[in-house]
Amino acid sequence: MRKVRTLGLLGTGVIGGGWAARALHFGIDVIAADVKPEMEEWIRGAIANAEPALARLTFAPLPPKGKLSFTTDMRAMAEKADFIQENIPEQLALKQRMLAEVSRYAAADVIIASSTSGLTPTDLQRDMVAPERFLVAHPFNPVYLLPLVELVGGAKTAPATIEAAAEFLTYIGMHALRVRREVPGHLTDRLQEAIWREILHMVNEGVATTGELDESIIYGPGLRWAAMGTNMIYHLAGGESGMRHMLAQFGPALKWPWTKLEAPELTESLIDKMVEGTQAQAAGRSIRELERLRDDYLVAIQQVLRQYDIGAGSTLRALEERLYKDAGAAAAAASPAGALPRYDAVVRPEWTDYNNHMTDFRYGHLFGDAMDALYRAAGVDAVYRQGGRMFYTVESHVKHLGEAKVGEPLYVTTQVLGVDDKRLHVFHRLYRAADDALLATGEQMHLHVDTAAAKAAPMSAAVRSRLDVLAKAHAGLSLPDAAGKPVGARAKH
Amino acid sequence: MRKVRTLGLLGTGVIGGGWAARALHFGIDVIAADVKPEMEEWIRGAIANAEPALARLTFAPLPPKGKLSFTTDMRAMAEKADFIQENIPEQLALKQRMLAEVSRYAAADVIIASSTSGLTPTDLQRDMVAPERFLVAHPFNPVYLLPLVELVGGAKTAPATIEAAAEFLTYIGMHALRVRREVPGHLTDRLQEAIWREILHMVNEGVATTGELDESIIYGPGLRWAAMGTNMIYHLAGGESGMRHMLAQFGPALKWPWTKLEAPELTESLIDKMVEGTQAQAAGRSIRELERLRDDYLVAIQQVLRQYDIGAGSTLRALEERLYKDAGAAAAAASPAGALPRYDAVVRPEWTDYNNHMTDFRYGHLFGDAMDALYRAAGVDAVYRQGGRMFYTVESHVKHLGEAKVGEPLYVTTQVLGVDDKRLHVFHRLYRAADDALLATGEQMHLHVDTAAAKAAPMSAAVRSRLDVLAKAHAGLSLPDAAGKPVGARAKH
Repeated sequence: MRKVRTLGLLGTGVIGGGWAARALHFGIDVIAADVKPEMEEWIRGAIANAEPALARLTFAPLPPKGKLSFTTDMRAMAEKADFIQENIPEQLALKQRMLAEVSRYAAADVIIASSTSGLTPTDLQRDMVAPERFLVAHPFNPVYLLPLVELVGGAKTAPATIEAAAEFLTYIGMHALRVRREVPGHLTDRLQEAIWREILHMVNEGVATTGELDESIIYGPGLRWAAMGTNMIYHLAGGESGMRHMLAQFGPALKWPWTKLEAPELTESLIDKMVEGTQAQAAGRSIRELERLRDDYLVAIQQVLRQYDIGAGSTLRALEERLYKDAGAAAAAASPAGALPRYDAVVRPEWTDYNNHMTDFRYGHLFGDAMDALYRAAGVDAVYRQGGRMFYTVESHVKHLGEAKVGEPLYVTTQVLGVDDKRLHVFHRLYRAADDALLATGEQMHLHVDTAAAKAAPMSAAVRSRLDVLAKAHAGLSLPDAAGKPVGARAKH
Repeated sequence: MRKVRTLGLLGTGVIGGGWAARALHFGIDVIAADVKPEMEEWIRGAIANAEPALARLTFAPLPPKGKLSFTTDMRAMAEKADFIQENIPEQLALKQRMLAEVSRYAAADVIIASSTSGLTPTDLQRDMVAPERFLVAHPFNPVYLLPLVELVGGAKTAPATIEAAAEFLTYIGMHALRVRREVPGHLTDRLQEAIWREILHMVNEGVATTGELDESIIYGPGLRWAAMGTNMIYHLAGGESGMRHMLAQFGPALKWPWTKLEAPELTESLIDKMVEGTQAQAAGRSIRELERLRDDYLVAIQQVLRQYDIGAGSTLRALEERLYKDAGAAAAAASPAGALPRYDAVVRPEWTDYNNHMTDFRYGHLFGDAMDALYRAAGVDAVYRQGGRMFYTVESHVKHLGEAKVGEPLYVTTQVLGVDDKRLHVFHRLYRAADDALLATGEQMHLHVDTAAAKAAPMSAAVRSRLDVLAKAHAGLSLPDAAGKPVGARAKH
């Protein structure tokens, strides 16, 4: 088969647009063919909408983007493409006719693939010229972000076609799943359709709303399914003896009316296939090891979802709001008057590098977080910033005196060395909480700016007066030795 | 109902251990009751195994951990607990007998909940004293990490019981899903069971292995299910007219043999329920808005999975390895001799703060990444560090001269100002790639250390000589104005 530099699309729509965005992003030219000329504008819009997310999928260096062209002439597309992907409506006769036609225009070493969700390749390739270069390559929406593509060959498909298609699809970032036998719905849509039909029954019978049924997945099994399928998850649920124990324990439930779908008979031969399959998946890893991996990704995914305030991430946010509130009340009751403002933190695993020590720039991160807390206390909050005013850090001099290990509780104190209309000069000290060891100092100059004018401007009187209170309270403290020194100067101890 | 300070567990096992770990972590005392005394050691082990992941779930301040005690006497547990959670084997008669017994020992204002996967509360509460305080509270494994808990009341359950249980379970970080009608399997397990039975059919008929079926989920729909359920996902797949269009387009597929599960008739009334349900879920957000949210979390989850080299994260890793290799070959061919070492990067969304400007400490992050690249080139790699030698940053003075916006390409150049046996003095400049504007400078002193002895030590001769080559090449360049100055000094321009 030939090297793919140009992808031809037979039909556009949501799936065709997704294929175009993915291929262009990874440096492949695309010729989109659609009988409706208005689809040119449509597909350009779809590609533009995909771009912001695609641009963040990987920060590895990319080849120059591919070029998009559009035609209403299927033949013009077929004569230029190195690989043709069909995305027309899910009607067998229509697909058969169009695939047969395009196969007459494309050279015999051009692979032709169908995006069909559930039609089988033997049916689709029936009337094609050179049907051995045909296969089903079924992607998932959004095609530009989800890596899965099911590859299914028909009775006349050559094995080399499957391998060449897998190579190209891997090149554009996909995971090629080779389906060993054609069945309606391939693999994924059979599983999705089973859930979907059960949902329709439950909504139909008034057992639950669509929203409740979605919640029943996204706060529980859905989090697990992001990286382990039902079989591996049940293998873990079985404890040390894995899938075999799980089948013994929950086998009887297969006879219970837990879904409208009847289960097959749980024969010895089926049990053996399930156990052998999951053992191959475990690949020698113990249940304990796999549990750790599962726990790691479950934690990490929930923290990611928190950023977007969605699903389990919203639950975590609400929990943390309550925890911060409870802790704030306790701290306010315990803080001595006149002390330097104190900011508490713990060294997170993602802040560490070789040796589990906190990475150098995270010291600056903690000083930044301490400044945020100080600003909030001085009245510089979201509302203040919406008025177009904020503080910028103009200079920062960090001296590293000790190491911090993952999980260690730390705290930062902040001494205000000086304030004027536009400038705030501070000195941070970072301590380990366990023994109050000084781990770093940070001297910083902050400038108050008018963001619209993009220049220095006086801070509000209210903020100034709150910072003055701190400066006055801290003036009695001696000037830190490390302040006012260039890099490399020896401190006088 | 009373405030819950002590959770009583009736039965331990994987689910009981998960409840214990979660409750203790959020400050609730736990009394675990099990007839088998050896389960005391077992549950302590289970709690210890849960701790590493739980400790990273949130970094918000936590109350002091709860205390665990164990007893083989159900009555002793029931008399001290404020809330009792039953986790014994899934046998109706056994559960009925044990729940009736424990209900005679526990005061009438103590809620009693069952972890049952699929038995119904009306059956379970039949023989209980004060059955109005009974409900099903069905959690998911691992209970200490997954927030979902299904709450189901029986014929005799008081509405106040459901609300009080929801309050306590929310307190320990869970998402309480109120199930409006009892059905075998509640909601979640009906959906899971439909997938599970379809999997068993496919393995039984030799269509696919357990591993292939797991892949068919984790590289595609599973990523979506982490934060949106099937209904919301299909609403998005329907384009601007959402679920209604989707049902019109894929309704006929409900008659196709895509699963062994027969679908219900797609009546007008069912269509209305599906459309109204998903419209309520969309809560006024447009398809476009929801697509952006979906794309955001799909990208973020894949980046998280990359860290653990699992599922779609492995696909992304393999892709990036190829991209870096391709780019490295291209760059080596294009780099001019004698230039300052250059490190390229793009401002990532998670590096920005208010206004989409890069946060102050990320300038230090980029200087750190530039140093890593320079060290790698000088032979300081993983193998070198395994020998117990590395460089520590001892001081860092950053001057901020301009802003960087999200998505902007930047680059760092690094000038070696001096090297001796143990010290490396460098000067970084951060530029915007589009116009070569200087955005920041960073003067740093690095110290070579013997990590075992925890003190400064000479670097290897090979590393020293590579750094000397750079120092000599850079000595001809003028000393940067900003070098050697304290914070607040004015540069001579």
